[in-house]
Amino acid sequence: MGELSELFVPERIAVVGATEREGSVGRAIMENLVEDFDGEVVPVNPKYDEVFDLPAVGSVGDADADLAVVVVPPHVAVDVVENAGEAGVSNVVVITAGFGETGTEGATREQELTAVAEEYDMNLVGPNSLGIMSTPNGMNATFGPENATEGSMSFMSQSGAFITAVLDWANDQGIGFKDVVSLGNKAVLDEADFVDTWGDDEDTDVIIGYLEGIDAGREFIDTAREVTSDTPIVLVKSGRTDAGAQAASSHTGTIAGSDEAYEAGLEQAGVIRAESVQELFDAARVLENQPLPENDDIAVITNAGGPGVMTTDAVGDSRLSMAEFTDETLDTFSETLPEEGNIFNPVDIVGDADNERFREALDAALADENVGAALVLSCPTAVLDYGELAEDTVELQEKHDKPVAACFMGGERVTSAEEVLTDAGIPNYFDPARAVGGLDALARFRDISRREYDDPVEFDVDRERAREILSSVKGRDDTRLGVEAMDLLDAYGIETPQGDIVDAPADALEVAEGIESDVVMKIVSPDILHKSDIGGVKVGVPNEEVYDAYEDLVTRARNYQPDANIIGVQVQEMVDLDAGVETIVGMNKDPQFGPLLMFGLGGIFVEVLEDTTFRVAPVSESEAAEMTEEIDSAPLLRGARGRDPVDVEGVSETIQRLSQLVTDFPAILELDINPLVAAPDGVKAVDVRLTVDPDQL
Amino acid sequence: MGELSELFVPERIAVVGATEREGSVGRAIMENLVEDFDGEVVPVNPKYDEVFDLPAVGSVGDADADLAVVVVPPHVAVDVVENAGEAGVSNVVVITAGFGETGTEGATREQELTAVAEEYDMNLVGPNSLGIMSTPNGMNATFGPENATEGSMSFMSQSGAFITAVLDWANDQGIGFKDVVSLGNKAVLDEADFVDTWGDDEDTDVIIGYLEGIDAGREFIDTAREVTSDTPIVLVKSGRTDAGAQAASSHTGTIAGSDEAYEAGLEQAGVIRAESVQELFDAARVLENQPLPENDDIAVITNAGGPGVMTTDAVGDSRLSMAEFTDETLDTFSETLPEEGNIFNPVDIVGDADNERFREALDAALADENVGAALVLSCPTAVLDYGELAEDTVELQEKHDKPVAACFMGGERVTSAEEVLTDAGIPNYFDPARAVGGLDALARFRDISRREYDDPVEFDVDRERAREILSSVKGRDDTRLGVEAMDLLDAYGIETPQGDIVDAPADALEVAEGIESDVVMKIVSPDILHKSDIGGVKVGVPNEEVYDAYEDLVTRARNYQPDANIIGVQVQEMVDLDAGVETIVGMNKDPQFGPLLMFGLGGIFVEVLEDTTFRVAPVSESEAAEMTEEIDSAPLLRGARGRDPVDVEGVSETIQRLSQLVTDFPAILELDINPLVAAPDGVKAVDVRLTVDPDQL
Repeated sequence: MGELSELFVPERIAVVGATEREGSVGRAIMENLVEDFDGEVVPVNPKYDEVFDLPAVGSVGDADADLAVVVVPPHVAVDVVENAGEAGVSNVVVITAGFGETGTEGATREQELTAVAEEYDMNLVGPNSLGIMSTPNGMNATFGPENATEGSMSFMSQSGAFITAVLDWANDQGIGFKDVVSLGNKAVLDEADFVDTWGDDEDTDVIIGYLEGIDAGREFIDTAREVTSDTPIVLVKSGRTDAGAQAASSHTGTIAGSDEAYEAGLEQAGVIRAESVQELFDAARVLENQPLPENDDIAVITNAGGPGVMTTDAVGDSRLSMAEFTDETLDTFSETLPEEGNIFNPVDIVGDADNERFREALDAALADENVGAALVLSCPTAVLDYGELAEDTVELQEKHDKPVAACFMGGERVTSAEEVLTDAGIPNYFDPARAVGGLDALARFRDISRREYDDPVEFDVDRERAREILSSVKGRDDTRLGVEAMDLLDAYGIETPQGDIVDAPADALEVAEGIESDVVMKIVSPDILHKSDIGGVKVGVPNEEVYDAYEDLVTRARNYQPDANIIGVQVQEMVDLDAGVETIVGMNKDPQFGPLLMFGLGGIFVEVLEDTTFRVAPVSESEAAEMTEEIDSAPLLRGARGRDPVDVEGVSETIQRLSQLVTDFPAILELDINPLVAAPDGVKAVDVRLTVDPDQL
Repeated sequence: MGELSELFVPERIAVVGATEREGSVGRAIMENLVEDFDGEVVPVNPKYDEVFDLPAVGSVGDADADLAVVVVPPHVAVDVVENAGEAGVSNVVVITAGFGETGTEGATREQELTAVAEEYDMNLVGPNSLGIMSTPNGMNATFGPENATEGSMSFMSQSGAFITAVLDWANDQGIGFKDVVSLGNKAVLDEADFVDTWGDDEDTDVIIGYLEGIDAGREFIDTAREVTSDTPIVLVKSGRTDAGAQAASSHTGTIAGSDEAYEAGLEQAGVIRAESVQELFDAARVLENQPLPENDDIAVITNAGGPGVMTTDAVGDSRLSMAEFTDETLDTFSETLPEEGNIFNPVDIVGDADNERFREALDAALADENVGAALVLSCPTAVLDYGELAEDTVELQEKHDKPVAACFMGGERVTSAEEVLTDAGIPNYFDPARAVGGLDALARFRDISRREYDDPVEFDVDRERAREILSSVKGRDDTRLGVEAMDLLDAYGIETPQGDIVDAPADALEVAEGIESDVVMKIVSPDILHKSDIGGVKVGVPNEEVYDAYEDLVTRARNYQPDANIIGVQVQEMVDLDAGVETIVGMNKDPQFGPLLMFGLGGIFVEVLEDTTFRVAPVSESEAAEMTEEIDSAPLLRGARGRDPVDVEGVSETIQRLSQLVTDFPAILELDINPLVAAPDGVKAVDVRLTVDPDQL
């Protein structure tokens, strides 16, 4: 595949299916391209000699183009792309619909398309795409009614209609774009490709997008991590809710992964996830234009007390805090502000403040080393000129090179001032909460851009032994494993209670005698899932009862299911659950992100309170540590209510070792360690359940 | 006090302090009043013969006015108001600042003002107010730069600047008002008064407000409850966060009650609390104009799949759900929509939909009995006329009399269509989440307006015995009570474990012998707060050890503090904590709302997870029941994880009895029953702590 960036800088574009027919897509694209494109446009259509006064050629092979835009009917589209490939055209945008989104026939056609693109190593956008744009060279290769104005956001969308709507709105708001891509069915190029390309693009300052699914989750995470060290990515990933996921599935046929996986994956990727269109653009606009704050403390300068309080609430809701000014700044305020004012944050310069007082206060606040960013908040008064205030705000933002947000509250009085602010990259909002939201996004991206991603630790494990244990399911109908797989954990260095599985009562006694405490005994049979329900578990068994207990367990199992495959009985050290905290570490497979790790406290915490956290595997040491910190019940691990803190590092290490296990063996479809008992002196995995796909071994 | 509604319909307004002096407040008010007011304006100023060509009088007594607006300096303002009172002017707006907001002298002046107003039974707004407006008679008695346009929202604000900002913005957005009040320092009239008045005002469809505090919480709740049976109230109460509360305190001197109290009180009052300015107006606009939905199921009709998914997410985030259409409606969609469309909700009528297809689909959806409201969601296309779509939307909304929200996504293309929608009371948003938010507010208000408020149950209690127990703190330095006050609970019918407090070991034994189980023994002394720490608690004491245990407890207490006042030893039935769920029922006093009840599960649930709920007392049966339902850990009361459900009704009754106790005795400053053990067969209050103010007994 040629460099993907070349997609946006073609010199000659072949429009295959170009026409002047009213209402046709081929006409719309021709019109859009002819209007502004700096390069040459070559209509391809054997039916015409020329289209819009441009000489037409009969086939894409004759166009000598470096980008082909394909608008022919679906049944010939694959051939056209193949022709383009033969002719050495390495960039193709397939507008044509009627592929994967329409059923079996379309899906087959889409597979053919992918195969052709791979054969010729092509950058292929679509099919079922609105097209692409790039503003520096005036290329509008879409059939939408809107063109983008130039800017430094690059925008991808899995909905073409959303692009159309955004462009119309954005033109009104003074928001511009560098490149725009309608992803369509993503037969070849997907979100990770564009993130990668735009990350290297000097003209792209922010990457934004609307996605309904992410095709290859882990690849996306790794790509986005690199990019977000200097370019912010803000995405709406829809289908967040159950109802939304169902709607997404019927819209683009996206097989919804769980939103837990997206939430975890996007967070791990360093992506700022917006929950609404408004959040998307509120964040993107400041990220496009403003410097990052050095700290999270903001100064609010206002001529109105009430809105100052509302703003402070919004700060309280965010990751930001109200700055505490240095004595020097407070002295300045004391000298310059009237007595009724407030020299502390929010700084109330009072309703009779003129522009000079506003400017001086903002200047002093921005000069304060404790202040990371400032918010200029004003209500209309007779003595204040909004236009001048806007100019002062812009000038002081530049002078101090700190981010500044504006909340000039008003309507008509604000319009021209708002333009001054917007031109300088300072969006203005009527609602203080939105202005605060912008500063919050800047602080968030500062943290993301400075993240150090540590590689997952590679523990020394016994991979071969693990493979053997997993292979025990081969040839079986039921591919679930239970306590008989405790050794799997052992092979990966996850501590388990002392004990063993035996198949004779005498052996059971021997094992029990080697264990200091009384023992727990459990029937081991792949055919008996709910052991407790049939009396298949005995706890606190003293040595003298072990022999009888063995016989009894086997009898019960036989009575329950005469043909059950009984592997034997597990004889295990009693782990004192009261001495520690029960936790659960689990994994299931997400269709987009692969193995998704879960951590939570056992019992009610997971089952009733749903207090859980997720990460896409493999996880690094710091990611595992975060998991143990971010659940609501985390204080219970750290000695809440006078108890000794448990071995949290041991928990974190268990998560990492499990992460390594499930990454090494994609055959493990799901796995739960429940409970993993975390005590002050260490952790022990008491029980395990997993499901294995023998075909992947 | 005359009817407060008269404040807004004066015939003659005296402006005391009227002047033509440039830049003065007296001039600004005169200008605003003269411009539009239907009645007469009488300037009052002994220095002038006329002001703005109107003949001036020397004193308010000579003006024969029914409303006086006072803009004289603070030191004469009280006298002016008194003169007005003597002259029989019953409505006064005090613009003058320099009262309670400025320190001791001002506070005294404000008390004088209140006294005068009360003496003459006056409706007094302010002091320190921007003024008031009423649009039907063109009265703008403020000194702000903006006038309101006519509408049916009435608006009160504790910030004058916020009014100014809102009016400028609202005029731009086509939002009008009936009355507007700048509350100022609320020396006489406060939010409850205006809620009450506007609730009876036929021209007010929605009451909105910005408040930093509510003066008399319980009164406000009772007033608002009546009003919200037909008039919605939407409020921003700022100071939600700690930082915000601090800022509010420095702005208006509001002593912040806890936000838990406001959250509970506003909910109990039926007020819709907005967290931001945007939320305030998004809710108010639909409530002003649209009918209430009969159910929570909404239909989304769209020509764009992607935005349809985003909208569905927003529905998932709200109290609403996506409607399931009847077979009849599905048949209609099947016949009229193209194959690529989606006949299920969100209904995708596809990008090539023209106006007719849109209209037919919306008509069918609104006709469906399963549909409570509809959202029209569209992206710009070549075949769709937005203006026509707006007209169809308005027409169909009226035809079916169901609420409709609009999300016509776009900028310039939408402007004129947006006007058609706005004029018909259908606000249009670019972000689908905001359109959904509007419908959500309608559904919320429907529930509020249909609420039945049951009166608190009056239990048969022994009030005199309770008074006696509480009175035991009289004359003591330490007014806290502990287990020695268990009888207080008993007097109010709250079940406590069997047992008694005794002051001799033989008596201890006698009590213990009357109890079936082993007993718990605790030292009882107001001087020993943390009994456990000094070994002052013994659990599981069998009868044969009771005598020695008594001696030992007293010895330990003496050793710990030789001069401690030792009342004796409590001998109590052992309550099996494992047989039930530990809960906490508590109360503390909020400065605005009075007794605030708290409920939560004991131990980690309250202390680590902060899983609590609050209500302002007194509570009714249904409010108490809600408290037991709305905590996250509520399932644990109802038999989660295979346990028997506990006596939740007993818990609810305990909350109600405690509510009655703290309402009967305002002297109880705080009280905690911890734990209240809730078992399947009943509840028992095992321990209690309270603080009493003897002066209120």
